[in-house]
Amino acid sequence: MNPDLSRERAAASFNPETITVILDGSPERTRRRREIEGLVLNDPSFQHEDPNFLSRSERYELAIKKSALMVQKMREHGISDPEEIYWFKSFVHRGRPEPLDLHLGMFLPTLLNQATPEQQERLFMPAWNLEIIGTYAQTEMGHGTHLRGLETTATYDPSTQEFILNSPTVSSIKWWPGGLGKTSNHAVVLAQLYTQGECRGLHAFIVPIRHMGTHEPLPGVVVGDIGPKFGFDETDNGFLKFDKLRIPRENMLMKYAKVEPDGTYVKPLSDKLTYGTMVFIRSMIVGDSARSLSRACTIAIRYSAVRHQSEIRAGEPEPQILDFQTQQYKLFPLLATAYAFQFVGSYMSHTYHRISAEIQAGNLNELPELHALSAGLKAFTTWAANTGIEECRMACGGHGYSRCSGIPDIYVTFTPACTYEGENTVMMLQTARFLVKSYKAVLSGKRLDGMVSYLNDVSQHRVQPHPVAGRSLVKDINDIQNLVEAYKQRAAWLVVAAAKNVNTDSKRGKRKEDAWNKNSVDLVRASEAHCHYVVVKLFADKLSEVLDVAAHRILSSLCLFYALHGISKNTGDFLQAGLLTTLQVDLVQQRVKDLLAVIRPNAVALVDAFDYSDTQLGSVLGRYDGNVYENMFEWAKKSPLNKTQVHESFHKYLKPLQSKL
Amino acid sequence: MNPDLSRERAAASFNPETITVILDGSPERTRRRREIEGLVLNDPSFQHEDPNFLSRSERYELAIKKSALMVQKMREHGISDPEEIYWFKSFVHRGRPEPLDLHLGMFLPTLLNQATPEQQERLFMPAWNLEIIGTYAQTEMGHGTHLRGLETTATYDPSTQEFILNSPTVSSIKWWPGGLGKTSNHAVVLAQLYTQGECRGLHAFIVPIRHMGTHEPLPGVVVGDIGPKFGFDETDNGFLKFDKLRIPRENMLMKYAKVEPDGTYVKPLSDKLTYGTMVFIRSMIVGDSARSLSRACTIAIRYSAVRHQSEIRAGEPEPQILDFQTQQYKLFPLLATAYAFQFVGSYMSHTYHRISAEIQAGNLNELPELHALSAGLKAFTTWAANTGIEECRMACGGHGYSRCSGIPDIYVTFTPACTYEGENTVMMLQTARFLVKSYKAVLSGKRLDGMVSYLNDVSQHRVQPHPVAGRSLVKDINDIQNLVEAYKQRAAWLVVAAAKNVNTDSKRGKRKEDAWNKNSVDLVRASEAHCHYVVVKLFADKLSEVLDVAAHRILSSLCLFYALHGISKNTGDFLQAGLLTTLQVDLVQQRVKDLLAVIRPNAVALVDAFDYSDTQLGSVLGRYDGNVYENMFEWAKKSPLNKTQVHESFHKYLKPLQSKL
Repeated sequence: MNPDLSRERAAASFNPETITVILDGSPERTRRRREIEGLVLNDPSFQHEDPNFLSRSERYELAIKKSALMVQKMREHGISDPEEIYWFKSFVHRGRPEPLDLHLGMFLPTLLNQATPEQQERLFMPAWNLEIIGTYAQTEMGHGTHLRGLETTATYDPSTQEFILNSPTVSSIKWWPGGLGKTSNHAVVLAQLYTQGECRGLHAFIVPIRHMGTHEPLPGVVVGDIGPKFGFDETDNGFLKFDKLRIPRENMLMKYAKVEPDGTYVKPLSDKLTYGTMVFIRSMIVGDSARSLSRACTIAIRYSAVRHQSEIRAGEPEPQILDFQTQQYKLFPLLATAYAFQFVGSYMSHTYHRISAEIQAGNLNELPELHALSAGLKAFTTWAANTGIEECRMACGGHGYSRCSGIPDIYVTFTPACTYEGENTVMMLQTARFLVKSYKAVLSGKRLDGMVSYLNDVSQHRVQPHPVAGRSLVKDINDIQNLVEAYKQRAAWLVVAAAKNVNTDSKRGKRKEDAWNKNSVDLVRASEAHCHYVVVKLFADKLSEVLDVAAHRILSSLCLFYALHGISKNTGDFLQAGLLTTLQVDLVQQRVKDLLAVIRPNAVALVDAFDYSDTQLGSVLGRYDGNVYENMFEWAKKSPLNKTQVHESFHKYLKPLQSKL
Repeated sequence: MNPDLSRERAAASFNPETITVILDGSPERTRRRREIEGLVLNDPSFQHEDPNFLSRSERYELAIKKSALMVQKMREHGISDPEEIYWFKSFVHRGRPEPLDLHLGMFLPTLLNQATPEQQERLFMPAWNLEIIGTYAQTEMGHGTHLRGLETTATYDPSTQEFILNSPTVSSIKWWPGGLGKTSNHAVVLAQLYTQGECRGLHAFIVPIRHMGTHEPLPGVVVGDIGPKFGFDETDNGFLKFDKLRIPRENMLMKYAKVEPDGTYVKPLSDKLTYGTMVFIRSMIVGDSARSLSRACTIAIRYSAVRHQSEIRAGEPEPQILDFQTQQYKLFPLLATAYAFQFVGSYMSHTYHRISAEIQAGNLNELPELHALSAGLKAFTTWAANTGIEECRMACGGHGYSRCSGIPDIYVTFTPACTYEGENTVMMLQTARFLVKSYKAVLSGKRLDGMVSYLNDVSQHRVQPHPVAGRSLVKDINDIQNLVEAYKQRAAWLVVAAAKNVNTDSKRGKRKEDAWNKNSVDLVRASEAHCHYVVVKLFADKLSEVLDVAAHRILSSLCLFYALHGISKNTGDFLQAGLLTTLQVDLVQQRVKDLLAVIRPNAVALVDAFDYSDTQLGSVLGRYDGNVYENMFEWAKKSPLNKTQVHESFHKYLKPLQSKL
């Protein structure tokens, strides 16, 4: 063990295991998670070379080999609980995506949710046994966010009782679905349904795309890989183009909408339920934000405790870089954010399950707020984690840029989350729509529940365009409840201002939609403030559940630090809204620096508590034992460019040139 | 030509060619740059496959092949002016680094600057003819920023008149030098010189590392590639470990310091001149920031003009995404920043050459300020460009994530600039040191020149801890000179505050160095404000040189927008310092939104003016003709995963599994 890390761990004021259990939810879950990780770590068939040394084709091949093995082993070990499957998968693939993700995560669930009993009977077992391997083909080259704009058509031909699938333009080619490029032989295809001469909107079809025996593309199908991306080397994101491909009528997923043999269209009863899946996935992404940022923080903070550089006092030995205030100021806000998002992630997951149960019981009341909250928090947390991961990388100096740091991999794996499952700005505007609607409801006399209930007081409120000079709402900047209140008032102030501006522009004769667009920057700002309030509130709420005194103390400091740092980065808002005086802003900025020193002795223990094994971190810089330099040297020697000491290129290109010049 | 782009270009209020010439500096330079690009574009031997489809080893091989050809062709074309070499190289390698970068950019210049005439005689021509291929080995695994910490030793042995080079620890292994891993047979090695039992500090040695005929590593040398990085696939960044390697005394670069045959050490007269190289490289990086961000903006803005998505008005066709206010708010501040940095880059380059001439004439007065300015601006511009490039990528939705967008490549090529040639936070603190020193000089009665002269007025100044309520310094938020003044006051306010805090902590009994560290967050903040002021000022100054009325009008709007947007993102500072009232902040935020609409019709022409050819941009999304989707499809088909339609992995791993499950 590196002596710096030993010293850091000995100096911590709390036991990291206590916080690990808090993060997992219970000792039993911590135990089981570790047990499942052990199944992978101790299985020699899951050991492999660092994928960074492989070409993309080799990485894909390695991934599919491991995915096949993973399915087999999960069945052998009897792992079937969704959360346990998630753990097993992420241990096997070390947090990276894999070619069967869409089959397991979208194709099978879609069959379960949208297929008729007859279709399930016919398709589910073959899919379960990987004879049918499917993906979910929705996005097209020219259409992502705006589903109504999708161009792929499915035209019903009653004479043969078939649908004709067609890609009328280049922009209509299905683009991006994971596992489509090479792996799948089927796809759920979203297409505009035409029957009896009328367009009936988007519907889902089970479409065979490759021969189940030979794996050759079927006639009428052009399919392939969309080429290299920033990351996701293991995944064959694909394209799919139909040239009037015919599929039997029975391949339309008909649990809700139907097309009768004669072409008569039967409407679905409700479309609220597909809504639920979207909410679920976005809530999951909040948890992904927390985990990805936690991993990057673990690497950067451990490395900063081990790395010595420069000098604080002339002539003395080089200090740990974690002792530089500027380094603390880079990393500790991210550490606090990682903790905040961990708690927000588990709140979202619990809330989703609670509200799902109510939906099953027919109560849809809370769904709109959950929908708005999951959209906004998805955007808020992915943006913050995305920036934060790169800040962690750059806080590691040059070595952060080496693939051996593991952070480039975390970044390229995570960053698409800002775009997929709802582009972040679009998400923020969805939340804004809910906030403005809620505000209008208040104005018309309704009372609100849930996270937006602060809008209830808005009319008789202190929310004013500008502060009364020298007065402020916050009595004590060290009282977390005071700060939660300040975040709440800031959100209220921005929501009201944006809503009023939209309203004013509408009254001035702008079309409602143009007024919305013209104020969308402010609407996004209001949504962000709302989400920020929710995150601070949920972090503060969590503290009451922490019973261990030492854990409570450090998490309280971290929560206070998160709230104060957020204010110090947005002082303009708090000053403009009259929530703080300039003198208080000075105090906040000073207190943020004081808290850096409070967190400093516990920083390593706080990342240890995230409990990532070395294998899962995939980082030489972030090793638990701190043995960095020797391992970096061993890692480098394995670089493919070192397979021979002499490089042929020298003899081939440079040597002949010497005589010519 | 895509009709959207034609329309955009027709609607522009100015001729992009006018601005291209302003950016280049003269019509002649524009002409010559295009001529040189033509030499590369029209040469079939420089055509090649997209490197994104190649493995890292293939990318290295392609790069070295092209570098050899490049050297040969430059001599054929008689290109020898440093700037023209820079252009030719960047056209050949399309902005990517290449294996001979360190040989051409560091090894040869070091010979010219630090070798004795005898050494130049012996080494320069072989190096010029690529018989000697060299790199510059300074950074070690454990030591980057802090040069005094470097561990490699060069111990003089008078009995054989040799230096013994040794790497005493793993952390002392040379790490990162470009071209070291496979390409070089020599290196300039920085090592602690020991002679007559005493350490004389860092000195440079010419060290043969590979046999010039066979290219085999020499005995006593362990050398290789450090492995894959986030980017820089073309470069063999290497490691180098010495096991008591002996080199002749004559291989120490002895133009300044010397070791006599008997081991007597002769000190250099001055070390100010090596200082100059550092300043030069950092000034160049400011230009790199401008170019990299300009390229990313070109791609994102052209694509946003071509891409249609979602709806502003229900039922109408999907609008160009550039019409969404949120999209404008993402991209236009970056466009304005790219322009600002272009002007700052050329200012730095001119200033460097002006001051160099003075240094040659023995006048070193301006060097400290130039040193501080180049450090701070290097950090300020690289941080902003780094974040900005990723914002451009994410503004392209999912397709930004595809390698065919070109932006991932721009990002990974650029991002190391935040760390190399001076880690950014360290750079900001160097600037802060100069600012605090200047402030102290003012207090002791000196008058300052140059960019820091604003500190002269600080004593009799309006700089106060807090504002007089309701009053402000800015009379007209639409007057750029008023805004320059506001940025200046903000910088003064922050410099004075940080300096006072350091002083107070020192007086309270803290050691000076600890007081510095304890206030380093504020010192960085002060440096950033100083740099921000310089950038706004230089942009505003540039306007007076723009004679064309139409070009002047749009660049003035862009400059005003840059200044106002910067205020709106830092309202806290301006409110805290009492430079703006809350009412004015509202107006600034409103004006920023109004200016989005002013820039909108000129956005495409403004990126056209950067004048990047399609080849140089390397982007399907950013094509000049806007023909995006067809080209994306053609590009994707070339993915290596599409070499066969049937994937062997399916038959190898999934098929056998079907029977087992």
